[in-house]
Amino acid sequence: MLGYAVTPRVITLTTDFGIVDAYVAVMKGVIITLESNTHIVDLSHEVRPQDVAGAAFLIQSAYRYFPKDAIHVAVVDPGVGTPRKAIAIQSPVGCFVGPDNGLFSPVLAEQQLVNPEDGRLRGKAVVVELTEQSYWLQPVSHTFHGRDIFAPAAAHLARGVEIGQLGRTLQKIHPLNLQPPVSRGGIVYGTIIHLDRFGNAISNIPESMLPPSPALDIAGRTLHGISESYQEGQVVAIVGSVGLIEIAARNASAADILGLREGDRLTVREDT
Amino acid sequence: MLGYAVTPRVITLTTDFGIVDAYVAVMKGVIITLESNTHIVDLSHEVRPQDVAGAAFLIQSAYRYFPKDAIHVAVVDPGVGTPRKAIAIQSPVGCFVGPDNGLFSPVLAEQQLVNPEDGRLRGKAVVVELTEQSYWLQPVSHTFHGRDIFAPAAAHLARGVEIGQLGRTLQKIHPLNLQPPVSRGGIVYGTIIHLDRFGNAISNIPESMLPPSPALDIAGRTLHGISESYQEGQVVAIVGSVGLIEIAARNASAADILGLREGDRLTVREDT
Amino acid sequence: MLGYAVTPRVITLTTDFGIVDAYVAVMKGVIITLESNTHIVDLSHEVRPQDVAGAAFLIQSAYRYFPKDAIHVAVVDPGVGTPRKAIAIQSPVGCFVGPDNGLFSPVLAEQQLVNPEDGRLRGKAVVVELTEQSYWLQPVSHTFHGRDIFAPAAAHLARGVEIGQLGRTLQKIHPLNLQPPVSRGGIVYGTIIHLDRFGNAISNIPESMLPPSPALDIAGRTLHGISESYQEGQVVAIVGSVGLIEIAARNASAADILGLREGDRLTVREDT
Repeated sequence: MLGYAVTPRVITLTTDFGIVDAYVAVMKGVIITLESNTHIVDLSHEVRPQDVAGAAFLIQSAYRYFPKDAIHVAVVDPGVGTPRKAIAIQSPVGCFVGPDNGLFSPVLAEQQLVNPEDGRLRGKAVVVELTEQSYWLQPVSHTFHGRDIFAPAAAHLARGVEIGQLGRTLQKIHPLNLQPPVSRGGIVYGTIIHLDRFGNAISNIPESMLPPSPALDIAGRTLHGISESYQEGQVVAIVGSVGLIEIAARNASAADILGLREGDRLTVREDT
Repeated sequence: MLGYAVTPRVITLTTDFGIVDAYVAVMKGVIITLESNTHIVDLSHEVRPQDVAGAAFLIQSAYRYFPKDAIHVAVVDPGVGTPRKAIAIQSPVGCFVGPDNGLFSPVLAEQQLVNPEDGRLRGKAVVVELTEQSYWLQPVSHTFHGRDIFAPAAAHLARGVEIGQLGRTLQKIHPLNLQPPVSRGGIVYGTIIHLDRFGNAISNIPESMLPPSPALDIAGRTLHGISESYQEGQVVAIVGSVGLIEIAARNASAADILGLREGDRLTVREDT
Repeated sequence: MLGYAVTPRVITLTTDFGIVDAYVAVMKGVIITLESNTHIVDLSHEVRPQDVAGAAFLIQSAYRYFPKDAIHVAVVDPGVGTPRKAIAIQSPVGCFVGPDNGLFSPVLAEQQLVNPEDGRLRGKAVVVELTEQSYWLQPVSHTFHGRDIFAPAAAHLARGVEIGQLGRTLQKIHPLNLQPPVSRGGIVYGTIIHLDRFGNAISNIPESMLPPSPALDIAGRTLHGISESYQEGQVVAIVGSVGLIEIAARNASAADILGLREGDRLTVREDT
């Protein structure tokens, strides 16, 4: 089987399947069997079971570092076996394949491609419901659409199948009802949305919402100003690697020191 | 080093090495050094240490989703350093490389290629003992045949070396003494063989052994009928993604709810 | 985008980022975006946070099994955001990219390429500080040089950029102050440097330092002689897979049996 080399299409996988079972490998086998010329990258398989918002955050923090024709497959799917839709999205920042439960809404909202309130498409994104059964792996199980519907859809897109062939076009996607940070009376009210492995607590407040001389209130403590980098053993606020305000400590877990959890409030105000 | 593109050969890896140490990476380095045109897929490295039956289940649940010329390497090897054989198998459903301790017996039995009782070959499989030392990485350690014997064997097969060159032909493999489900007096006696990450309890009873209106007894509870899909917060029996009966609960761990463990009995009878 | 196939360059990644967050995937996205023809191998991402010596041990135990032109990227970087240098190394045994904090010192010392005491280069290695900003991902964050400096440097090397273009040449690297095993009065004083997943305790004493009939003292116990392989349920000393003395037990954790921890002393003397 000789041929010319074509740049392999990148496919990323984000799931809550963990790494103990063979579910992820099975998805890769399905993809490779249909299209061998791919570069499959694990984004994370350690999303907490059923944590759609957590997976959406990971995808949002990573997609911009991949080629613009990468195919991002996400299977965090509490609705598998119910009438929730299976979708594929083509956009100027990548393709996205998975259940229509909000996994890709933050990315499309950030790119101004959907209305974050109601999920209506606004621009250059094409969304299809994966209804065309000839592109599924048969028979389709009730419990593993990652293998039977999403992996094949990604592989067919990588092979060059037009997205419109995979099913019927949709005008909206399911919005993800994340509470965005709110600015009211000069105070920004935000939330801790992710604790990473180092104990950095990442908020949903972007750098652009900071006042000139910010003071940050979190867990009964006030932090003054934004640090340029981590500081030894000391809790500081920094602009993290995806442009969001993080609470961090060099060589220590800010989450442990302050007892932080996802969902905790972070408020930012002008330091007085 | 220019050349024409050939479809890369898929090599899957199943081990109990975990992901903290570098053992898996070392095997990949050995493979790539010998044959760079491969697509290596991690099946799982979180098999419980020395759990041959657990690894055999993972391979059995995954191999059919890979190309028919994929090479499945498994190193769960409590006998490393003892006289247990090292083998490679070529079959119509893939190649298999690892210690001869039963890891591949369920796949070959399912494909009618061996007698499950005594491991004698029946059909189109070729099995060799990896005795040809020129295909080993020298010097061979007493403790890491994954690196020194199995990874090189897989790479040489991927390069196109004939399996017969790797060693002497065998007529039987080591059978895996799994207790299969038994049907007696209209009752099917089975076992829970795997708890997955979601707390789904997978039994060894295939859909084909179910009576027309099944009632399932497990952990002192009776489940009536087979559900089409998971149901919210409720323990149900379903046909899982590999065709085996599973005990499951939507967005909850059936294993936790019922206190299930691997090895627990599941019996199925006609509902009366 | 058609072209001829060139053997993909191998890039290994060693980090303390874990596998829950998307940090590793982001590094892969950056690499692939710059150079798609690579074979990226995870060495380990489960290095303990900030454990430079642990990462150095993993790299040292693995690099020799990869092609001699592989690029080994390591990001265990307690000094990120401080003036510690970012470096790339070209040597006859591979390229190495990461912070200049000792991660690569054991490999270079073992290959006689640096003086282990002061880190001065001795031979055929070229080291550059990654100062050439046109090869960075802009803007550079204060907290994620893996993404912004090290992944791009590796990708540019894989593309064929000369190492000298990436920055200014250095004459020394940061040494890693590991205490090597010491031989005094016929007794070898060593240390347990790694406990692996199986509970094998790996020391820093190489086989070459053993006396003819060794007795090993560890955790108040004496082991007589070096075993050829693990022995059932019994603690033995063996020569491990990288040539270092290991304390091990077949199908059991020697570390648990003896209560071993990293840093524990192991002494070896002639058995009397």
